[in-house]
Amino acid sequence: MLYTDLEDILVKVRASLEHDDVAGAVAALEALRAPDQADLFHELEDEHQTALLPRLNPEDAADILEELEDEDAADLVAMLPRETVARIIDEMEPDEAADLLGELEPADQEFVLRQMEDQAEVRPLLLHAEDSAGGLMTSDFLALGRRMSVGEALAALRTWKPDAEDIYDVYVVDREGHPTGTLSMRQLVTEDPQAVLADVVEKDFVTVPVGSDQEEAARLMARYDLATLPVVDSHGRLVGVITIDDVVDVLEEETTEDFQRFGGTQPLDRPYLDSSVLTVARKRVGWLLLLFVTETLTGSVLRHFEAEMAAVVSLAFFIPLLIGTGGNAGSQTTSTIIRALAVEDLDKRGLLRPLMHELSVGLLLGLVMGVVAYGRALLWGTGQPVALTVSASIFAIVVWANVLGSLLPIIAHRLRIDPTVVSGPAMSTLVDATGLFIYFTIAGLILAL
Amino acid sequence: MLYTDLEDILVKVRASLEHDDVAGAVAALEALRAPDQADLFHELEDEHQTALLPRLNPEDAADILEELEDEDAADLVAMLPRETVARIIDEMEPDEAADLLGELEPADQEFVLRQMEDQAEVRPLLLHAEDSAGGLMTSDFLALGRRMSVGEALAALRTWKPDAEDIYDVYVVDREGHPTGTLSMRQLVTEDPQAVLADVVEKDFVTVPVGSDQEEAARLMARYDLATLPVVDSHGRLVGVITIDDVVDVLEEETTEDFQRFGGTQPLDRPYLDSSVLTVARKRVGWLLLLFVTETLTGSVLRHFEAEMAAVVSLAFFIPLLIGTGGNAGSQTTSTIIRALAVEDLDKRGLLRPLMHELSVGLLLGLVMGVVAYGRALLWGTGQPVALTVSASIFAIVVWANVLGSLLPIIAHRLRIDPTVVSGPAMSTLVDATGLFIYFTIAGLILAL
Repeated sequence: MLYTDLEDILVKVRASLEHDDVAGAVAALEALRAPDQADLFHELEDEHQTALLPRLNPEDAADILEELEDEDAADLVAMLPRETVARIIDEMEPDEAADLLGELEPADQEFVLRQMEDQAEVRPLLLHAEDSAGGLMTSDFLALGRRMSVGEALAALRTWKPDAEDIYDVYVVDREGHPTGTLSMRQLVTEDPQAVLADVVEKDFVTVPVGSDQEEAARLMARYDLATLPVVDSHGRLVGVITIDDVVDVLEEETTEDFQRFGGTQPLDRPYLDSSVLTVARKRVGWLLLLFVTETLTGSVLRHFEAEMAAVVSLAFFIPLLIGTGGNAGSQTTSTIIRALAVEDLDKRGLLRPLMHELSVGLLLGLVMGVVAYGRALLWGTGQPVALTVSASIFAIVVWANVLGSLLPIIAHRLRIDPTVVSGPAMSTLVDATGLFIYFTIAGLILAL
Repeated sequence: MLYTDLEDILVKVRASLEHDDVAGAVAALEALRAPDQADLFHELEDEHQTALLPRLNPEDAADILEELEDEDAADLVAMLPRETVARIIDEMEPDEAADLLGELEPADQEFVLRQMEDQAEVRPLLLHAEDSAGGLMTSDFLALGRRMSVGEALAALRTWKPDAEDIYDVYVVDREGHPTGTLSMRQLVTEDPQAVLADVVEKDFVTVPVGSDQEEAARLMARYDLATLPVVDSHGRLVGVITIDDVVDVLEEETTEDFQRFGGTQPLDRPYLDSSVLTVARKRVGWLLLLFVTETLTGSVLRHFEAEMAAVVSLAFFIPLLIGTGGNAGSQTTSTIIRALAVEDLDKRGLLRPLMHELSVGLLLGLVMGVVAYGRALLWGTGQPVALTVSASIFAIVVWANVLGSLLPIIAHRLRIDPTVVSGPAMSTLVDATGLFIYFTIAGLILAL
């Protein structure tokens, strides 16, 4: 049972809605799983969406809102009566409800909050930045006293009867609310019901401060294979819990942003197909212009060596080859180093090591490319001296590109700038200008121009 | 409590080992969490590793082997007595044990398996490809009969007493072993103990065939926010379960591979710092050479237009600017499209849409860059006709780069080739050669060369 074939169902739902058969559309939609419901719903026209959502049962409507992008969900609820909105948001998980409420106008937000049963849980979540651990956590967790028995904990859980699926652990806290241990559902079931919690809990556990970046929380959970991560305030008190399913989404989102940044564009705030042409263009034009200005340097370098080019015209034929290879070598290095910085804690092992590593790789690759370029130049009927110039230049440029390609992301990381700002395009552009300079300097030496 | 400061502890452990105080090193190591133990252990010299591992208690040794890369773990156990190895592997989770056993010599593998208590669980896992759902799953799961009560299920769980932390769900199967429902630990605890399982289980659940790619399993779990994913054989029988912590690792690993591929290098099999200079160079040299050969096309194009260049020398100054900007625009497009293909199911929504999207973005960006380039050329003291040529060329090249940059990954995806083969470097190189052709063709028309 994989993805449902959504296209067919979409056609049916659309047909129902166009014949004002909202009940039929509701039935078709409610048969799906939440992420599929949201995908299908997202494809519908605005007026169909606003007609349909209030007619769904509030749990399904809440699921759909949770799965939609926050901005889309906010646009949608802005077109519905505030009472309906309150009823639906009340069924959302507290962390998702807070994210959506954060997108509403202050007056609407306050109105909806007052109507909600869960407002005590949701209100504190509104205080945290969306991309912080606090913005990711839910306040839906069970904190138990240290002297309780396992049996009493089970009874408390039965009384609480959480509706969230993603309850994997419970927490033991002291009188001030500091977490002192965790207990998995599995342990709760398998431990002796008479045992006192303080004796059976796992006391060695990881927590994250409420203000930390969501990516840090995600990396901690990935590293320690955690299903849940307790979040503490500045006094070390347990204020929320991050669950693994949210973290998977964060990792995917951060990866998408890294990928776009590395491709030389500002990350899109929304999925690609939902971003307008104007938005996509706006996110790209800045880098494109900046690199354009940088690239005009290459023109200046060329003009500076105009005499050399005029003297030996064949030098010009190799320009794209040399700077292209340099850009490629730089981009290879940068992409590897950026990922290593993200997942291998490169900086904790000393930054000299990757630099020396890349220098060696550069020397090796430079040697190979130098030999190949020498042969290629001769084959093209170029004379010995120019072939030698091209060969020596490509060696120097590849080594230089490898050093630059490792150094720049490492420096960015040190300066606490996202290393993906050193994108492939930025590398190519930098190597273009500097590579030309290397080329003509070597040409000057070898050809005695 | 974040990452432990490993450097200090490493120094201590090393000092202990050099003074033959293995017990001291063991104590320092056993105080750490498994991923930290493995990181520190990995930094030790081979002879220290082989001295230390057998002295750790088997659970800790097993944890370390689980956290190490499979190849490193295999190298390590190859240096230990086979009885010791069997004792340690027996404490590993079945899926991790199978991965490690898969790396051993057949004779050693068989010897170790015969010594293991868990061999019945591990043996079937050895049959699956490492990067398939079967290679990712564990056989450590609880399958219950449909007529059991919740209370009986709890009792069965207590008897089973799994030591794995990551038991989040149990499964209900029919007499042939087909899964018919799932039940979370939370539900098991909160449902009425008298209730019959068949009445309370979740019947709408997702499964994955044992032979599917691990990335597909990972995407399913990410999409449906699953903590566990049941794996079925070709007869639809439950044969294993994938847990979310393994999936997080798969997603990270696939992201790293995508990033490296997009940077223009074959993915490394091991972490960057553990890959030798020779390995890193070997993974890069193929692409570098292929792109070099492609890039020689630019040289041919330049030679073809030698007369035009000689006639208007200033045309040459703009070459790096034009092809650089084209490469950048192409790389921007490709990186965005590749991620959209990975996470947004772009192909399910029709491939014409992204293409039209990029065409529009390209026209817009081409217009902006054309105007800027026109101004820049005039500012450089270039005459009207050349400025016009540069401006028209950059417009055409940017549009072309955007079309090529969206078309190529989409075609690759259609041909079931990983779209990241259309890397940034590949885009730049392609645009270099074709861009020059566009440039000189336009120059020929405008300047009537």
